Amino acid sequence: MKPAVLLLSGGLDSATCLALARRQGFDVYCLSFDYGQRHCAELDASRRVAAALGAAEHRVINFGLAQFGGSALTDTNIAVPIGGVQPGIPVTYVPARNTIMLSLALAWAEVLGSRDIFVGVNAVDYSGYPDCRPEYIAAFETMANLATKAGVEGVKLSVHAPLINLSKAEIIRTGVALGVDYGLTVSCYQADARGRACGQCDSCRLRAEGFAAAGVADPTSYLA
Amino acid sequence: MKPAVLLLSGGLDSATCLALARRQGFDVYCLSFDYGQRHCAELDASRRVAAALGAAEHRVINFGLAQFGGSALTDTNIAVPIGGVQPGIPVTYVPARNTIMLSLALAWAEVLGSRDIFVGVNAVDYSGYPDCRPEYIAAFETMANLATKAGVEGVKLSVHAPLINLSKAEIIRTGVALGVDYGLTVSCYQADARGRACGQCDSCRLRAEGFAAAGVADPTSYLA
Repeated sequence: MKPAVLLLSGGLDSATCLALARRQGFDVYCLSFDYGQRHCAELDASRRVAAALGAAEHRVINFGLAQFGGSALTDTNIAVPIGGVQPGIPVTYVPARNTIMLSLALAWAEVLGSRDIFVGVNAVDYSGYPDCRPEYIAAFETMANLATKAGVEGVKLSVHAPLINLSKAEIIRTGVALGVDYGLTVSCYQADARGRACGQCDSCRLRAEGFAAAGVADPTSYLA
Repeated sequence: MKPAVLLLSGGLDSATCLALARRQGFDVYCLSFDYGQRHCAELDASRRVAAALGAAEHRVINFGLAQFGGSALTDTNIAVPIGGVQPGIPVTYVPARNTIMLSLALAWAEVLGSRDIFVGVNAVDYSGYPDCRPEYIAAFETMANLATKAGVEGVKLSVHAPLINLSKAEIIRTGVALGVDYGLTVSCYQADARGRACGQCDSCRLRAEGFAAAGVADPTSYLA
């Protein structure tokens, strides 16, 4: 089995990505992050998802993005928008978050001798984040192959983003077909400690619309 | 004054880089890292250097690279080579280290509204690390401009590596001309708690040869 490193947030997309990587025959080393986000419910969810989908290993890395602030997800003085998805890059954008996470995945991949990193970013039903676009992923892959000893030695590292061109409904149908239990996942930007979702933030809206469009019952626990 | 974010290790190169950035008129926000390296003497040195050279701010970020290991600098079971600089990438290479550090600098730069990141990498008298080469720095810059909200909005971010084509002697002469006190810096991979250098690791050898070639008295404190 080939080892792969996968960014696991505990949300719907990364759980589906894990199921896809497993189906492709990878031994999947899952990496989650405590970066000062608003709640830990997604980390709890990541542990459930990693166990349910047969991760080879699951680690949680700390890094202190909250000390920089600048995002509704890392600065409690900036409110999470609940009025509906708007055009443009929202205040929930966390500067350089995916780059930092992919860089830490790159470090682990190189130590493991893995040539494959998986990330569940999605550029269709998404929040307009720049670091979810195909051109960003391609540029990260190019950079990664110049950054590493493996790259210098001619071992090509691939950054797989298998969900990038799927709609949320397609992602959900894919996951359901692979046996993903979305009841284990938490997507809400401001879930409570038990993982119950607000139902109003962009992430909740995109998720709920995805279940509706897919014709799949929504297993999300919502706050009353 | 324009804000810039600078990676500050506490060593000779990053101190020189800070002096150059200050001379260019930047307000310099220095970033150092506790990533599980062998000793904290370089973090102490980074604090001294930041203060001496007039940094606008200096922060230390933690991230747990030691849990991945795979380098003599993060795994105490792997010895630091002391036999002299050899061809190829040495075991002191830390997988993805510069990528992780530059990513965290990118996060801070975006929050500060800065368009400039400085890094004191050097591809002449160096240890063969892949993430010190000009093609790597260029690829990181390209990726960074796709990763960020500022990049999407057309604000170009530059990654400056002003030492990249200088010899160690040229770096030292540059720093001396700018008033850098290299006695404040620690380059050794295995310095003791007081910052005294082993004199035998690659970093010590390149530094000592640089002072000799520059015709500058070496202010380094060596272990007996």
